[in-house]
Amino acid sequence: MSFSPFEHPFLAGLFGDTEIGALFSAEADVAAMLRFECALAQAQAATGVISKEDAAQIVAGIASVLIDGDALRKGVAKDGVVIPELVRQLRLVVKGEAAAKVHFGATSQDVIDTSLMLRLKTATEIVAVRLSASIAGLESLLERDGARPLMGYTRMQAAIPMTVADKVLTWLEPLKRHRERLVTFTHHGFALQFGGAAGTLEKFGDKGDAVRAELAKRLDLSDVRQWQSQRDVIADFGHILSLITGSLGKFGQDVALLAQLGEEIRLSGGGGSSAMPHKQNPVLAETLVALARFNAVQVSALHQSMVHEQERSGAAWMLEWLVLPQMVAATGSSLLSARRLIGQIETIGS
Amino acid sequence: MSFSPFEHPFLAGLFGDTEIGALFSAEADVAAMLRFECALAQAQAATGVISKEDAAQIVAGIASVLIDGDALRKGVAKDGVVIPELVRQLRLVVKGEAAAKVHFGATSQDVIDTSLMLRLKTATEIVAVRLSASIAGLESLLERDGARPLMGYTRMQAAIPMTVADKVLTWLEPLKRHRERLVTFTHHGFALQFGGAAGTLEKFGDKGDAVRAELAKRLDLSDVRQWQSQRDVIADFGHILSLITGSLGKFGQDVALLAQLGEEIRLSGGGGSSAMPHKQNPVLAETLVALARFNAVQVSALHQSMVHEQERSGAAWMLEWLVLPQMVAATGSSLLSARRLIGQIETIGS
Amino acid sequence: MSFSPFEHPFLAGLFGDTEIGALFSAEADVAAMLRFECALAQAQAATGVISKEDAAQIVAGIASVLIDGDALRKGVAKDGVVIPELVRQLRLVVKGEAAAKVHFGATSQDVIDTSLMLRLKTATEIVAVRLSASIAGLESLLERDGARPLMGYTRMQAAIPMTVADKVLTWLEPLKRHRERLVTFTHHGFALQFGGAAGTLEKFGDKGDAVRAELAKRLDLSDVRQWQSQRDVIADFGHILSLITGSLGKFGQDVALLAQLGEEIRLSGGGGSSAMPHKQNPVLAETLVALARFNAVQVSALHQSMVHEQERSGAAWMLEWLVLPQMVAATGSSLLSARRLIGQIETIGS
Amino acid sequence: MSFSPFEHPFLAGLFGDTEIGALFSAEADVAAMLRFECALAQAQAATGVISKEDAAQIVAGIASVLIDGDALRKGVAKDGVVIPELVRQLRLVVKGEAAAKVHFGATSQDVIDTSLMLRLKTATEIVAVRLSASIAGLESLLERDGARPLMGYTRMQAAIPMTVADKVLTWLEPLKRHRERLVTFTHHGFALQFGGAAGTLEKFGDKGDAVRAELAKRLDLSDVRQWQSQRDVIADFGHILSLITGSLGKFGQDVALLAQLGEEIRLSGGGGSSAMPHKQNPVLAETLVALARFNAVQVSALHQSMVHEQERSGAAWMLEWLVLPQMVAATGSSLLSARRLIGQIETIGS
Repeated sequence: MSFSPFEHPFLAGLFGDTEIGALFSAEADVAAMLRFECALAQAQAATGVISKEDAAQIVAGIASVLIDGDALRKGVAKDGVVIPELVRQLRLVVKGEAAAKVHFGATSQDVIDTSLMLRLKTATEIVAVRLSASIAGLESLLERDGARPLMGYTRMQAAIPMTVADKVLTWLEPLKRHRERLVTFTHHGFALQFGGAAGTLEKFGDKGDAVRAELAKRLDLSDVRQWQSQRDVIADFGHILSLITGSLGKFGQDVALLAQLGEEIRLSGGGGSSAMPHKQNPVLAETLVALARFNAVQVSALHQSMVHEQERSGAAWMLEWLVLPQMVAATGSSLLSARRLIGQIETIGS
Repeated sequence: MSFSPFEHPFLAGLFGDTEIGALFSAEADVAAMLRFECALAQAQAATGVISKEDAAQIVAGIASVLIDGDALRKGVAKDGVVIPELVRQLRLVVKGEAAAKVHFGATSQDVIDTSLMLRLKTATEIVAVRLSASIAGLESLLERDGARPLMGYTRMQAAIPMTVADKVLTWLEPLKRHRERLVTFTHHGFALQFGGAAGTLEKFGDKGDAVRAELAKRLDLSDVRQWQSQRDVIADFGHILSLITGSLGKFGQDVALLAQLGEEIRLSGGGGSSAMPHKQNPVLAETLVALARFNAVQVSALHQSMVHEQERSGAAWMLEWLVLPQMVAATGSSLLSARRLIGQIETIGS
Repeated sequence: MSFSPFEHPFLAGLFGDTEIGALFSAEADVAAMLRFECALAQAQAATGVISKEDAAQIVAGIASVLIDGDALRKGVAKDGVVIPELVRQLRLVVKGEAAAKVHFGATSQDVIDTSLMLRLKTATEIVAVRLSASIAGLESLLERDGARPLMGYTRMQAAIPMTVADKVLTWLEPLKRHRERLVTFTHHGFALQFGGAAGTLEKFGDKGDAVRAELAKRLDLSDVRQWQSQRDVIADFGHILSLITGSLGKFGQDVALLAQLGEEIRLSGGGGSSAMPHKQNPVLAETLVALARFNAVQVSALHQSMVHEQERSGAAWMLEWLVLPQMVAATGSSLLSARRLIGQIETIGS
Repeated sequence: MSFSPFEHPFLAGLFGDTEIGALFSAEADVAAMLRFECALAQAQAATGVISKEDAAQIVAGIASVLIDGDALRKGVAKDGVVIPELVRQLRLVVKGEAAAKVHFGATSQDVIDTSLMLRLKTATEIVAVRLSASIAGLESLLERDGARPLMGYTRMQAAIPMTVADKVLTWLEPLKRHRERLVTFTHHGFALQFGGAAGTLEKFGDKGDAVRAELAKRLDLSDVRQWQSQRDVIADFGHILSLITGSLGKFGQDVALLAQLGEEIRLSGGGGSSAMPHKQNPVLAETLVALARFNAVQVSALHQSMVHEQERSGAAWMLEWLVLPQMVAATGSSLLSARRLIGQIETIGS
């Protein structure tokens, strides 16, 4: 199956992103979930909730587990989430009484949201590196061609002459702001989700905060009160992604318009046509526009999912699953295409 | 990689749809594209554009071709579409002068849009069958429990007593209308796309219409003038998909609300919780809501892509690729979940 | 206040539409509501539910009523809908025992949805006339300039020469289909909403269907079972609106791109610039694009509102109020701009 | 005309916001534009671009001008923007040679975007005050009822008992974060737009930066390079608005669900029904949900408008005009309803 160009056998040639894709593989998700369950056991041992021996057995068991993927799939079909079946498998490999302590005090959403956060954090590092590469590419362009004259266009009409620098700066400046936004987000945005059945950590008595703090520390995530029904930070993250693709879409649109006018930009390596071998289609520029509009649509879903019913809503939460990973994919893909497109600009200006 | 729950190793347990998924595999796409290229050669032979011998060699060559998927992927990376590389591979296997006649007079969009139409047509048959299954399921429910009393709720408050039939009819009637919509759409909606480089079939002189009519007949698609930059029919199709998931989302929402109130519905097989083994979560009902809201977001992209620049726009077109297959997936998945959920309703009413 | 360009003191110079606007005035809404209440009394008299005398008194009272708009506003603040206060005012002017028969058996949503349908029906007639005007305008263009050569552009690059007719047909054909869609919709789409408190017409015993049929006849609307929680037909209507603006947006985009290229179109009366008096901005073309993208966003809300909780949902219903009138406004406005823009095309082709 | 419930004669009883509405009146817009033109003249005098006498005459002229609103409307119809006609009117009242210095070096977008920023800044102060009022209201609720037991609901099913505090905190915490977001945004977000014809301030030679700095200072806005085609900050602002309405929508949804369950919340002043006088509809709670979903849709338009063509795009810019003021309206309205709804909660918990 390949419903999505981001993971399609041949469309991925244009849209694919193996580095980001690896973070959203089932394997990476399970690995992050297991990391959560290990760290939870260790945090509970450190705070005296369970014994050090139980924690050691849990960690050893998890280290040795061979996950049955088919059973996970069947578990999801039944429970709507993977955790009950995953925990069942973990308890089978953990010896003795420690088995009952696996996942103690946690709930599905704790594991799934935290796994997401761990992987979004890594994704953000990748995105930031690529943003910097596009910024560097545009800065080189600025240095090389910045002083050349270029016609300014407003409202789809030639306006007055300006320079290449005037144009490139409008591509460059927002990317720098987005990099700042990512840095600011990183300061607090990647947070542990840990609340237990209804968000109250009711299994830990007065030790709830201590367990959470210890768990956050071990996972290198921010320690905040559970946010399972408060999705504003998720929406923030999606917003930044869509800002990035939006600015790159503006860059792509401008390049495509320049290429159509034909006089003031020279691109290498445009796409070939099956009907007209002479054409050089600005494929990457168009791809940037498509990805911008794609994320601009998806961001609406993240805002819809803020209407999260009661303590935890399956419906609002699943809506995120359906769009957020693809927004990351679109962003990663857009950055790859932007970098390639910048490299294809042989000259700009006249 | 698995950015999308529709094709995710374990989330597909809930969201997956192997039958619809098969239609969107790369294999199915390529098979439909080869079907187009064969039919094109035959249509050209039938109308005297190429010789019968050339057509026979093209058909034979295509029948024997072993597609190099890696090369397709690289072709997409370069050209933004798969057709130039696919045609190159086909020409290699077609003997003699016929090679130059492969894909004669056609362009990438002809092949890609027509392949989509062929597969959407099959997808629609699957969707229609499932719609009928849900309709039948609700009709059984109506017959079994229709006469039982049930409280009517308006604006989230108990209003006046009514019957189960009053409720079930509001789930059933729109599904019947959607089935009608699919039938009406099928009369004309699945249309050949065939226009050549800029939509004018300029390679065929006065035979353009005849080739197109013959090609449409061979592919069992409607014969209409090229629609490459007119995407209203695509938007119609997506609209119907989203109506289906919307109505099923309303059904799901109602079931979840009834289940929360707890007195007037009994469901079997709800999802288990990792923290609270006693709970029976109405997972399928929530899934229907999530899929409804997902398609309600995506439909916006199809309307955005109607602003299709000039004779053919890469950007607007790629935006469709990014959402339409998943809208079909969401619809197929929603119908599977709806059928299961109907089956889980042990009793409704009091 | 003027949050919306459609009714803004000066922005309405570009976006306004007094003809459509009149249908969405409070006065027109109240007038349609009063028409409903009159016809309801008459339909109940005709079917023997109330006496002919009571009906006559109700009709006479309504004919003489002076609506207190401030009180309506306060009523909405309290009840969320205008009907309780409106009915209260009507009962004050209806003499004797007939007062209690005003609005008998109906509920707020019956009146409000039916008032909407009455006005959408008239709006559709206006839209259809304007669509025909744009179609006629494009047909004249086709006749005048159709044979002239014009460069075809695909993927933002010059492709092959074609004719003006090839381009104009891609603008014209979808508009003709939209006109057909409106005709088809009109056959069944404008339907009476009549269900009473929870949709069961429980006040009428076995006369419910007869009253509804009589009421529909008097209002010249389709007679269908209540659809208060089934919003697919509303979504259909919004979909057609967005198709219209989408196709006009494509036309606008094409004109703007032609105008930017500058060689193959000559427009009169473009917008002036405060900084560059020499410029002729293709303002109307840009307006068409903006309105297309506006409706393409709004259509998502109509699909979201299909997830209509239980027998009647205030939340889903209010969401329609917030977008549907403006979608009609955008469509009316777009058609006015399109007609003007067609008239501004002095020549096209080379 | 009243396409929008935010300014509808009677629907504004529920949705209206006179305080925010005043900021989006044509009068407020013109006043802010005149303020820009005055400050521009003064800034140019202060930096030696024009004489102090000319500046004084411009300021005096603007102080005495009687704007002809009809002419503004006709100007927009012709030019697509109001500025050419507004400047024409200003030049008529400014005596002597100073007339030519009115609006010197500026362009339409400078005035319109800056007017928007001035008014958004004031709107933000209003929004912040209301946010604080809702925060204070929830804090009182927390203090009054926080210790009472309340059932926790996850995935639409009763989960485990918790306290009212656990629930109220999930409403309260995001509002506090939104208040922080507004504070952070205010630090830099309200920025002067000033670029001249194509963004290069070409009329000022080496004094461009000085004029801009002086102008920003006089208008109490941030001094940044022109951002006319970089709309990320506008999108940031709309994002925060939609976060606010999203969190209030979650609060509304929770209240409506509690009210439906009926045991654990008591509300005063619910809406009356025309069919069922006994009912108390949670109208305000539903309104919050509707407004949340409305903004969640609109935010997509702001992201679409980031694909802003070239130096200035009419289409992308007008799309903002069509949605941003209404997003502010929805946010103001939501905060008013939230405050009222908090006040209606007589008791919560059991």
